Amino acid sequence: MNSKKINKKKIINDPVHGFVTITSEFIFDLIEHNYFQRLRRIKQLGLTHYVYPGATHTRFQHTIGALHLMGQALDSLKSKGIKISKDEEEAVLVAILLHDIGHGPFSHALEESLISGIDHEILSQLLMNELNTIFNGRLNLAIEIFNNRYSKKFLHQLVSSQLDMDRLDYIKRDSFFTGVAEGTIGTDRIIKMLNVSDDKLVVEKKGIYSVEKFLISRRLMYWQVYFHKTVMASEYLLVKMLQRAKLLASKEVSMFATPALSYFLYHDIHAANIKQELQKVISHFVKLDDTDIITSAKEWANHDDKILSILARNLVNRKLPLVILSETSPKKEMISKIKKNIMQCYGLAEKETTYLLISGEISHNAFGSSDDMIQISVNKNELKDLSEVSDILNVPYLQKSEKKYFICFPKNCGV
Amino acid sequence: MNSKKINKKKIINDPVHGFVTITSEFIFDLIEHNYFQRLRRIKQLGLTHYVYPGATHTRFQHTIGALHLMGQALDSLKSKGIKISKDEEEAVLVAILLHDIGHGPFSHALEESLISGIDHEILSQLLMNELNTIFNGRLNLAIEIFNNRYSKKFLHQLVSSQLDMDRLDYIKRDSFFTGVAEGTIGTDRIIKMLNVSDDKLVVEKKGIYSVEKFLISRRLMYWQVYFHKTVMASEYLLVKMLQRAKLLASKEVSMFATPALSYFLYHDIHAANIKQELQKVISHFVKLDDTDIITSAKEWANHDDKILSILARNLVNRKLPLVILSETSPKKEMISKIKKNIMQCYGLAEKETTYLLISGEISHNAFGSSDDMIQISVNKNELKDLSEVSDILNVPYLQKSEKKYFICFPKNCGV
Amino acid sequence: MNSKKINKKKIINDPVHGFVTITSEFIFDLIEHNYFQRLRRIKQLGLTHYVYPGATHTRFQHTIGALHLMGQALDSLKSKGIKISKDEEEAVLVAILLHDIGHGPFSHALEESLISGIDHEILSQLLMNELNTIFNGRLNLAIEIFNNRYSKKFLHQLVSSQLDMDRLDYIKRDSFFTGVAEGTIGTDRIIKMLNVSDDKLVVEKKGIYSVEKFLISRRLMYWQVYFHKTVMASEYLLVKMLQRAKLLASKEVSMFATPALSYFLYHDIHAANIKQELQKVISHFVKLDDTDIITSAKEWANHDDKILSILARNLVNRKLPLVILSETSPKKEMISKIKKNIMQCYGLAEKETTYLLISGEISHNAFGSSDDMIQISVNKNELKDLSEVSDILNVPYLQKSEKKYFICFPKNCGV
Amino acid sequence: MNSKKINKKKIINDPVHGFVTITSEFIFDLIEHNYFQRLRRIKQLGLTHYVYPGATHTRFQHTIGALHLMGQALDSLKSKGIKISKDEEEAVLVAILLHDIGHGPFSHALEESLISGIDHEILSQLLMNELNTIFNGRLNLAIEIFNNRYSKKFLHQLVSSQLDMDRLDYIKRDSFFTGVAEGTIGTDRIIKMLNVSDDKLVVEKKGIYSVEKFLISRRLMYWQVYFHKTVMASEYLLVKMLQRAKLLASKEVSMFATPALSYFLYHDIHAANIKQELQKVISHFVKLDDTDIITSAKEWANHDDKILSILARNLVNRKLPLVILSETSPKKEMISKIKKNIMQCYGLAEKETTYLLISGEISHNAFGSSDDMIQISVNKNELKDLSEVSDILNVPYLQKSEKKYFICFPKNCGV
Repeated sequence: MNSKKINKKKIINDPVHGFVTITSEFIFDLIEHNYFQRLRRIKQLGLTHYVYPGATHTRFQHTIGALHLMGQALDSLKSKGIKISKDEEEAVLVAILLHDIGHGPFSHALEESLISGIDHEILSQLLMNELNTIFNGRLNLAIEIFNNRYSKKFLHQLVSSQLDMDRLDYIKRDSFFTGVAEGTIGTDRIIKMLNVSDDKLVVEKKGIYSVEKFLISRRLMYWQVYFHKTVMASEYLLVKMLQRAKLLASKEVSMFATPALSYFLYHDIHAANIKQELQKVISHFVKLDDTDIITSAKEWANHDDKILSILARNLVNRKLPLVILSETSPKKEMISKIKKNIMQCYGLAEKETTYLLISGEISHNAFGSSDDMIQISVNKNELKDLSEVSDILNVPYLQKSEKKYFICFPKNCGV
Repeated sequence: MNSKKINKKKIINDPVHGFVTITSEFIFDLIEHNYFQRLRRIKQLGLTHYVYPGATHTRFQHTIGALHLMGQALDSLKSKGIKISKDEEEAVLVAILLHDIGHGPFSHALEESLISGIDHEILSQLLMNELNTIFNGRLNLAIEIFNNRYSKKFLHQLVSSQLDMDRLDYIKRDSFFTGVAEGTIGTDRIIKMLNVSDDKLVVEKKGIYSVEKFLISRRLMYWQVYFHKTVMASEYLLVKMLQRAKLLASKEVSMFATPALSYFLYHDIHAANIKQELQKVISHFVKLDDTDIITSAKEWANHDDKILSILARNLVNRKLPLVILSETSPKKEMISKIKKNIMQCYGLAEKETTYLLISGEISHNAFGSSDDMIQISVNKNELKDLSEVSDILNVPYLQKSEKKYFICFPKNCGV
Repeated sequence: MNSKKINKKKIINDPVHGFVTITSEFIFDLIEHNYFQRLRRIKQLGLTHYVYPGATHTRFQHTIGALHLMGQALDSLKSKGIKISKDEEEAVLVAILLHDIGHGPFSHALEESLISGIDHEILSQLLMNELNTIFNGRLNLAIEIFNNRYSKKFLHQLVSSQLDMDRLDYIKRDSFFTGVAEGTIGTDRIIKMLNVSDDKLVVEKKGIYSVEKFLISRRLMYWQVYFHKTVMASEYLLVKMLQRAKLLASKEVSMFATPALSYFLYHDIHAANIKQELQKVISHFVKLDDTDIITSAKEWANHDDKILSILARNLVNRKLPLVILSETSPKKEMISKIKKNIMQCYGLAEKETTYLLISGEISHNAFGSSDDMIQISVNKNELKDLSEVSDILNVPYLQKSEKKYFICFPKNCGV
Repeated sequence: MNSKKINKKKIINDPVHGFVTITSEFIFDLIEHNYFQRLRRIKQLGLTHYVYPGATHTRFQHTIGALHLMGQALDSLKSKGIKISKDEEEAVLVAILLHDIGHGPFSHALEESLISGIDHEILSQLLMNELNTIFNGRLNLAIEIFNNRYSKKFLHQLVSSQLDMDRLDYIKRDSFFTGVAEGTIGTDRIIKMLNVSDDKLVVEKKGIYSVEKFLISRRLMYWQVYFHKTVMASEYLLVKMLQRAKLLASKEVSMFATPALSYFLYHDIHAANIKQELQKVISHFVKLDDTDIITSAKEWANHDDKILSILARNLVNRKLPLVILSETSPKKEMISKIKKNIMQCYGLAEKETTYLLISGEISHNAFGSSDDMIQISVNKNELKDLSEVSDILNVPYLQKSEKKYFICFPKNCGV
């Protein structure tokens, strides 16, 4: 029997970055692995395409894009004399490639409903370990870098920090696919301005305008896309639907579900017991993607449970609730009026209205925390926080988060 | 109870055309209908994203884009003095909006496996009739135009002809999302060059270079994207998987399937009996989309039937067969050698190899038929076929189709 | 004799905005006038193409682009119920079309050397009056609006304010032609967000992110393009060359000059005497453009006056001085050291070094003054300054100007 | 005295290709040379900006762009194992950098009026030799390649052939700046498809669609831009103006002219005497650019010679003649009628009408000649002409030229 040798130096055509070259056979093998291929079935922005129809791009595309930018960043740093060994180079490429491997379908939805207490970073961790076993320890260094346990700290910052390749790719990509062209950023220029000083990833001084622009673009994307009222409305609908399904499952109510989803509905997985169940959790998790949720929701639209069927039908047919955002918390009287309307309109008991009436806060801050501020190399021997160097950005503001209150309920139950 | 009036003059942000305005409330209501929302769950290019990862755009986006171009075309024609009434305008917008409403998941796959003999245009027809009943006959004129039974023939040509808004949108959109930037076309310019002469949609003479370019781009997209070897390999895998599932279903073998897919697997729907079963067919069809196929395939990957499981596993994990294209039909000895390899490698009987070894022809011709040639208005009183006016395009060639032979089989079973 | 009627409904192909339609015959006639055609010979960004080679676009293009955006803005405002009469519409289009008509070659250079004390806005004024006479008073209303003497103040704001069509076009256009893609702005979105409240041009609240982004982009363009060190170096060279030529002319030294330039070199025009000389000034000014300066400089490169020849030669052959920017004013010792180097190297007397050694300040502030702040309509009855609404922009900072010190001298005379 | 070392590894920001890196110090020195800097003052497309206002880009930009593509092509070929030494690499980069060094202002205008019989390729040759002397013979190999006298013929083909880097850049660049977006081509993809076979530059088979698209785009650019009627009208006006000025100069009539232009007006330079006058010709030629023509024309607009003043005034103020294109040669009666109209309208003698009434032929063929056909490598050992491999392009047509007749005359003198 004759087997053709496969060409592993692949070129992938990406509408955002152009031709992306896969430079190593090991990277190629990881991309080919089922665990990674699953990301083709998980949309980068969940239900955002309900508002921006173009936003059907996937975690797969995003990760390939981030890999591409990482290659550029490594070349740029090396050309400036920063020492990065071949092994480190592969490891950091692997780390960025796998940084989203643990994303479930509509990720936050899952985290908030099916496997509460276990976020996608823990799952990414678990899957990387699993792959490390499969590939005989070749991911050791990548995992060290991912977990920020490797001595050269700037390598971790390329994977995860204020200016990591993850963010550079997703801001640009989400801007491209949503059509919110203003959000686009000059990834080329930012990458050319990166340097390493004192083992920290820094931006050269003349790159400050590009960094300011990046922060403003990111904020624009937050409020115009990620926190768009209708996007949030879709996601609340999804979370509530899954929570309801989980509740019914806990009461042994039967319902259609794909086997992978069924496992997570009918088993109680949480931080405490995940270790014992690990192999089972993983074997089901790697089969779970957006399609499990959608096919199940289509069936639930006709389920006997009134609440489940309302939520599922509205989700599938895009009959979205109304979201009201405000700077102050909504008045109690208004909430109680809406609650009554819902009870009357849908024939529900008061405690059941929690599935249709949701209120809470959202917040976004430009920086995760003050100790992770972008560093600017103002001259050879001196680093400063961006907040000290940027005149135009409001520094105290940058460090606190921007908060809004929301209330979400069926369109026909307003006051 | 208080209900907010919904704003139906919506603006949709499309990365390809920019802001798209929905100009009529009726169009808005059609877009909101479940039948139309289903198109959000059907990718425009099936499994093409296996080769061009960006190509995850949907029939929903495409149809909204074609609607937008139709609005531009109507404005352009009216500005040239062509008489188009308000009713005709709405009808032709509705016709283009619904032209793909009957597309099933991975459309050709379905047509070739589950409901053979019934193509998506028949289904579009059926669903339009259904919507016409729901909307009390308001689609009458749209349906007449769609079926080319309306007196003003050029209105049908805007919906379906060599230069219809369907093609103008999909060439541009597919080029955008695949990243094959060369395929892009100047839809603005072509639309500005459209005119009507003698009740025919024609292109003004100075538009000839843009039309030539459109034809060359379309051909480039055919061979670079639509007939890309790996795209075809994915689609054959899908068709064969569904054919195998259908066969097993006919033998009452049980297998996981979503209810909608189950209906089409376990019922034999064909042109002869569709009329009797119409309501059932429609009620299941409008629930069927890409996710049904994918969730089912994920389960079939572990089915007892060896062939089904191989095909499903390869499909889900993107382990694609090899496709060889050639100008001459492949040699019999080669085929029989490959067949033996497959039998040996997978332990199959000879007749079972038809699921893994596929051969046939593909063809594409620039024009559907000679009577549908693009007409150029060379001067006020004279129309000519593009073929007479274009010097550079090879006329005899344009009228025959471009044919290639292919053979498709598992990568490890070559000769 | 037979004369063809000219089609005045022209379409102009603009790489930035696409097809631009000239909607009125009067606008067409103004564009055709010699005074306006002169703008084809004046680069929008002077010598910026010495740094960004693509930036050879002209005032002509920019003005046509601003005209296009004005048409869009008027349509948008009218669609929101703002009353704008046909006459007002034409007038505001004319006002934006002619807002740069008084720009001389390398405008600031001229203002600072040849006709000091008379800026391009005064000249625009004079030329508009002249055109008004030629067109029998048809520009009356346009001139009123331009001078902010018309009752509807928002019409003036469309022509000249923080968010006028001039700025929207030039930020986007300069970004396009320089290749500084990050500078691009969403003119479509900003224009859709404009409204009029209390006779003020305002931005609707959800447009705030786009406006923030516009301000950041504008600032980025300032520091990355308009105040780029090498761009400034080129402009100083030009100003100094013209100042030297003017000095020599005042001493009756003869030198090659095109007739139009000669007039301004050998005549002393200033705010006090321009009225008496008006017809002569205008008749020469409308012949003056970039080419007069360049052809003269090419000859001056061989002039007997050592300083003129150095400056001209360096300008023509792009042998640019060094510019050092700093936050603090340069040290006296450094300046005096450089001065000595220049004297020694070029054999100049101390007072002559002022042509080769230039120091000073540049500043840019995001807003001209606090009374011209962008207004946001936070709800139906309430307007707020952007500074009150924007959390992220540093308010006190926005109102003061950003200042830097520069010093500019021949590359080989540094310390 | 202290002199800073200049960084010669420059990055140039090009709106068409992005960041262009100058990789060698010698290339940098050539770019800095006055001869090359002159190209900043010569528009790539002459007066095309009279029709497409964006088209003010220069030969400088184009050459830098072609240099960039050459770098990419060399990298691509080397990655395929084609042997190219460091010296050859530099030489071919130099050859493309200097291929347009001999372009005069509005090049064909000059060739047809001022120095008839000497085209820009001869002048490029002369200037390269001159530079070779200045740089002590370092251009030897570049000149050999430029003149196709070097043993490796494919290196010359990269500089000058059907698919050279000159064409790849100008089609893409002219499309970008004119706004004729349809003309754009996939330079990345074409370059990736280049290979060398049998010392010939060839295109790999799967690149055939991109090449077809390149040819169609090029043809579209020809008829939509380069041979646009109004572009041609502008150029005829220019040629006739210069011919008239030359005639007056030969009669010792005095007129304003910049010194460089004056030299070519008052001296009779032709192929026979250029050798003797070489140093003088070169010293004046390198000072001549677009601005000399424009400043002179502005003065000629008021010259006593009626014909010169008409032509110059119309050129400067963009009062363009009418051009009629046709497939058949214009009727004699029509021409004689127009001639009479001109005589009457302008008070000219019959023989003087040749300055205002121009007729002739233009032609464009897709391939220069059959022996320069693009070669396709259909498999390892076989090359074929594109004409044999491309089905869609009309082969016999490609080898003959496309011819049209034109007649050009003042708008008010038509019949």
